[in-house]
Amino acid sequence: MDERLKKQLDFMLELDKMKNLYRQTYVLHEDRKENDAEHSWHIAILAFLLAEYANEPIDVTHVMKMVLLHDVIEIDAGDTYCYDTEGYKSKAEREEKAARRIFELLPDDQRDEFYALWREFEDSETADARFAAVLDRIQPLMLNYTKGGISWQEHGIAMEQVLNRNKEYFSSSDKLADVIKSVINDAHEKGWLK
Amino acid sequence: MDERLKKQLDFMLELDKMKNLYRQTYVLHEDRKENDAEHSWHIAILAFLLAEYANEPIDVTHVMKMVLLHDVIEIDAGDTYCYDTEGYKSKAEREEKAARRIFELLPDDQRDEFYALWREFEDSETADARFAAVLDRIQPLMLNYTKGGISWQEHGIAMEQVLNRNKEYFSSSDKLADVIKSVINDAHEKGWLK
Repeated sequence: MDERLKKQLDFMLELDKMKNLYRQTYVLHEDRKENDAEHSWHIAILAFLLAEYANEPIDVTHVMKMVLLHDVIEIDAGDTYCYDTEGYKSKAEREEKAARRIFELLPDDQRDEFYALWREFEDSETADARFAAVLDRIQPLMLNYTKGGISWQEHGIAMEQVLNRNKEYFSSSDKLADVIKSVINDAHEKGWLK
Repeated sequence: MDERLKKQLDFMLELDKMKNLYRQTYVLHEDRKENDAEHSWHIAILAFLLAEYANEPIDVTHVMKMVLLHDVIEIDAGDTYCYDTEGYKSKAEREEKAARRIFELLPDDQRDEFYALWREFEDSETADARFAAVLDRIQPLMLNYTKGGISWQEHGIAMEQVLNRNKEYFSSSDKLADVIKSVINDAHEKGWLK
């Protein structure tokens, strides 16, 4: 087998580690947390299911690739819970190092392409990256809400924290921002958020 | 919330059932089987990672959407193990009924679009669908091979069965066909395939 194909297959096998990286969100129909592979699959479908709600024009293919790969760095860096202020201090450095190691498994052109997709998502400056970020927020929000706010209650999360985490991306989709706000309000009224 | 968006979010929540539909393949780093969400995520990445090996021109975005959705019908129809000849007799009918029920949750235009993507994959007549099928074959093959042929041994599968299942798609990628053939030969030499 040639070197290029061998690298691609090694990368493919490395990705399998995403299947045992567990997040704080629960899946709906089992008593267990969701892993990064499942989460990424779910939001890749949202990228074309909900594309019509982007405020600015987006490249759906680019968004799909971005969300499929956005959590791959957690193979080395681990999942940092979004309300863990201590963990967030070292997050950027840990994730940059992880990205360098993991994408280096690829042939040079794909290393550069995949790294750029991840970097764009993290920098959150393009319309595509900001729409990808809304999807990355709304998916766990909807699961958590449907499951009675279970992970908010476990961690004693307040309404203000969820609003703050979400509102920086509200400008990328009016329609999805309305859904997020109404879910947060309702979860607060139900007592699932402090 | 308007009717259209409500339908899309209901579909999104319905998809969560993919996370507890377990296949015969094992994940590499835990002692458990892989679910449909994880499998679909993995091959959606292969769609752009390995696109260069398609013998005919393919539309990568179309292939990605197809593989992200191809197993959704298993929510109702269940996973039919690929060497279960009895289960295969009723597979087409069960899956058609499932597709009708599940995609009906969507707004009409997306119901038609998503159903068509699934139908195209099943019919396996276009270059996109045939390349998607190779990816759907090579992913579990590589996992199973890397894990010492565990699911072939559990079911007493013969080399000939694996070759037959794979060879109908060999014409869609010479390069990937070579990988599949050499993996099967090696698994046979190691005694993992009868």
